[in-house]
Amino acid sequence: MSALRARFHVRVVAAARPAVPRHSSRLGVPKRTWSSAGAMRMAAAKPFHKDEPAAPVLKTKIPGPKATEAVKQLDAVFDTRSVNMMADYTQSVGNYISDPDGNMLLDVYAQIASIPVGYNNPELRKVAQTPEMVDAIINRPALGNFPSHTWAGILQSGVLKVAPKGLNNVYTAMAGSDANEIAFKAAFMYKRQQERGGPHVDFTAHEIETAMNNQSPGSPQLSILSFKSSFHGRLFGCLSTTRSKPIHKLDIPAFDWPQATFPQLKYPLEEHAEDNARAEQASLDEVEHLIKTWHLPPAAVIVEPIQSEGGDNHASPAFFQKLRALTRKHNVLLIADEVQTGVGATGKFWAHEHWNLEDPPDMVTFSKKAQTAGYYYSSKDLRPNKPYRQFNTWMGDPSKALLFRAIINEIERLDLVNHTAAVGDYLFGKLSGLAGKYPDHFQNLRGKGQGTFIAFDNPKRDEFLAKAKDFGINIGGSGANAVRLRPMLTFQEHHVDILIEALEKVVKAL
Amino acid sequence: MSALRARFHVRVVAAARPAVPRHSSRLGVPKRTWSSAGAMRMAAAKPFHKDEPAAPVLKTKIPGPKATEAVKQLDAVFDTRSVNMMADYTQSVGNYISDPDGNMLLDVYAQIASIPVGYNNPELRKVAQTPEMVDAIINRPALGNFPSHTWAGILQSGVLKVAPKGLNNVYTAMAGSDANEIAFKAAFMYKRQQERGGPHVDFTAHEIETAMNNQSPGSPQLSILSFKSSFHGRLFGCLSTTRSKPIHKLDIPAFDWPQATFPQLKYPLEEHAEDNARAEQASLDEVEHLIKTWHLPPAAVIVEPIQSEGGDNHASPAFFQKLRALTRKHNVLLIADEVQTGVGATGKFWAHEHWNLEDPPDMVTFSKKAQTAGYYYSSKDLRPNKPYRQFNTWMGDPSKALLFRAIINEIERLDLVNHTAAVGDYLFGKLSGLAGKYPDHFQNLRGKGQGTFIAFDNPKRDEFLAKAKDFGINIGGSGANAVRLRPMLTFQEHHVDILIEALEKVVKAL
Repeated sequence: MSALRARFHVRVVAAARPAVPRHSSRLGVPKRTWSSAGAMRMAAAKPFHKDEPAAPVLKTKIPGPKATEAVKQLDAVFDTRSVNMMADYTQSVGNYISDPDGNMLLDVYAQIASIPVGYNNPELRKVAQTPEMVDAIINRPALGNFPSHTWAGILQSGVLKVAPKGLNNVYTAMAGSDANEIAFKAAFMYKRQQERGGPHVDFTAHEIETAMNNQSPGSPQLSILSFKSSFHGRLFGCLSTTRSKPIHKLDIPAFDWPQATFPQLKYPLEEHAEDNARAEQASLDEVEHLIKTWHLPPAAVIVEPIQSEGGDNHASPAFFQKLRALTRKHNVLLIADEVQTGVGATGKFWAHEHWNLEDPPDMVTFSKKAQTAGYYYSSKDLRPNKPYRQFNTWMGDPSKALLFRAIINEIERLDLVNHTAAVGDYLFGKLSGLAGKYPDHFQNLRGKGQGTFIAFDNPKRDEFLAKAKDFGINIGGSGANAVRLRPMLTFQEHHVDILIEALEKVVKAL
Repeated sequence: MSALRARFHVRVVAAARPAVPRHSSRLGVPKRTWSSAGAMRMAAAKPFHKDEPAAPVLKTKIPGPKATEAVKQLDAVFDTRSVNMMADYTQSVGNYISDPDGNMLLDVYAQIASIPVGYNNPELRKVAQTPEMVDAIINRPALGNFPSHTWAGILQSGVLKVAPKGLNNVYTAMAGSDANEIAFKAAFMYKRQQERGGPHVDFTAHEIETAMNNQSPGSPQLSILSFKSSFHGRLFGCLSTTRSKPIHKLDIPAFDWPQATFPQLKYPLEEHAEDNARAEQASLDEVEHLIKTWHLPPAAVIVEPIQSEGGDNHASPAFFQKLRALTRKHNVLLIADEVQTGVGATGKFWAHEHWNLEDPPDMVTFSKKAQTAGYYYSSKDLRPNKPYRQFNTWMGDPSKALLFRAIINEIERLDLVNHTAAVGDYLFGKLSGLAGKYPDHFQNLRGKGQGTFIAFDNPKRDEFLAKAKDFGINIGGSGANAVRLRPMLTFQEHHVDILIEALEKVVKAL
């Protein structure tokens, strides 16, 4: 455990009831306080969102009549078959998602892990109404050609303020998928530049001609190496690296890129150290073998700090340290895909901070909780050698960058990364208790020391998720059998208690 | 000319000076009024943007000292080599883009054709401040899973209100590139579903297994056919169809997809009818040959109504009608890429309306002036047969859909599509005059009857574009030699006169 984590490691000891919210309580909130090494942290027990209900509110079966009607209307024009729940965001607050029938569920899925600081956060509301935001919305620039004179300041006071150590440049994008794809493009351009002999060596006429015909060498025979069960998005390039589920990939042409087995660890990690180390070494050996032998040499390896869509699969810091060394050894770039793990949920701002690397990843991609997207990169060498090589009309969106800055400010104001580390420990402890009591229903509990980024397997997973709504919880799944917890950063101990009580009811009802 | 266009075909006849704007005039504004068939349309002569300067304002050489300093600051963290002009959007108004040194240029490039109704448009400003917009910004949903109960209404009163005829469903996206890619995905899924025997035939175990390994048949050996010199975006799938410039494609792996020659027409079109018809037929023959013989059979053909980035290349309605018939004959889908041509600039809301098709394209992609993005599609057959096949976290952005609705309302309020058709005719007439006077500098003038979507070739194109700033004009290029005009929809006759006067000065200074 790092020094930072240890400092905020908490123990539940005594009594300090949170301020009574305006809504009536349906589930009791246990008394408790926070103790950290040295200082009482009473503040953490106060609710971050004053207007939250004290507990979930269930007025109808979900979907209720109004939600059902709204889905029907939407279906006439928009694909609704993946609708999980019709929402009413005007009534949602903090950690609670509302629906048109007046139900309010504790939301530990948070728009597929993309809401950072609560629904209708008052600080974000203020920022959304500033002249700066209005300007950004109605005068959207083509950032590569006509950036605003305020753009550098917006980046420096926001996106770059939280840049991972060693990565102080950014290309902005729109979402996680295109963030990964432009990182891939940067990797390919960098690799070919090296092969060509450096940034000052120009393209040959043959390269130019073949590129226009989608042929090698202009369109090079290179690849991106990813891991089995990974998820990196669903555009054509990133989908070629995604290996999560067939439904993501079927019928879509793909590049013949290599995949290595991701270590399949046994949980609890500490009880299977030897087996796990062996699995990690086997994975690394496979990576090295593929780098050396794949018919389309990898320009980069992309990896999630925790495989998220693939079922919350973890690996140790040692694995990632060795992966970094291996990619460095073979002159292959390392891209950390922090689209789902980034922005605080693992108890670090970036999950790859858990790896304690001396030599950082070459690029880190981000989106979701950041609301904007892009990739951080380590050096100007990774800027393509000519303009217009990494370019598109918008190249991001200043209004989203302003929103991310407001989110960062809120995270700092409330110390939400350390808070999430602490609440995660509390949550993991409570889930361990449930797992002891119902071992069949809470298998492979994982995410210890990783903030609230926690998951477990349940043999009746889909039923589990559906049933949770009956007890006031909106919760998501991943992989084949995992129930994944993706609460917001303002998720607190009293929410944990509500969640745990509800999960026990779910299990009993299964 | 269609009946609609004919109705608003205008002739410049007489005098009605626009209201005097607050800024001092540098270039005289000629007197004129509008006459349409039957009714005087005096309203059109009034400036849409009351606060615009009467003419460009030049205070420094561009870039001035403040802009230079701002670029330097930005370069430390963001790639600035493609910066055309550092802008100050807080001071920009209507058709005028401002910079930090107080210069105000008449902007006929409009953020690479993506600003529809003027900088700091007051109606958009109002909408940007509504509670509905603030809610959309701070509570961004995962639309596929948790749509808002207001989403159907937002679509129906906005995006779908302007749906192309026959295409009354939509998948929303973030930008033109991903809009094209998800349209490709829909095409591949549709094609494979047909090959499989229909929507109710399930995937085989072999398909599932091979898809996970990026191999056929799960990852099918299919393609998208595009045209030489086309531009469809720069992600890995759409870049494989983009054939505009080597700098867009070099060093990026690509799919081995087919390209047909786009008809290379001679201008003025009416003087080369026979040659042009021959070129179009040759192109169609090549398309048919490729469809029948390419080793990766095309699931769709994608085409721009006017090739934009590729240099403003036109083709006749007859060409597109035959292309529609050809794709129908061979059971290949037709995708119209209206990312740049859509939303009014050609004098129709969608440029493909000029084709007068009875059988519409299967999909129409859009973005840029719409601020949001996506594809319209013709029937529920094009909805993949299972949920989660066309899916990602956000699937668009309600805040941008609200913005598009406001833009649509502004277009309707000011009748901007018909207005643009009329102003385009006026502009084309004036440019024809210049071309008569300076034939070497205004070669291949094109875009007659296509609103303000007009271009010409200049042998010193890059100098031309740079020099234009000295005379108060921000103007863009495309292809190898084209100067392309992409003014906003609120571009008016008095702007045309300023532009024409400046262009003549540019030419004299070259």
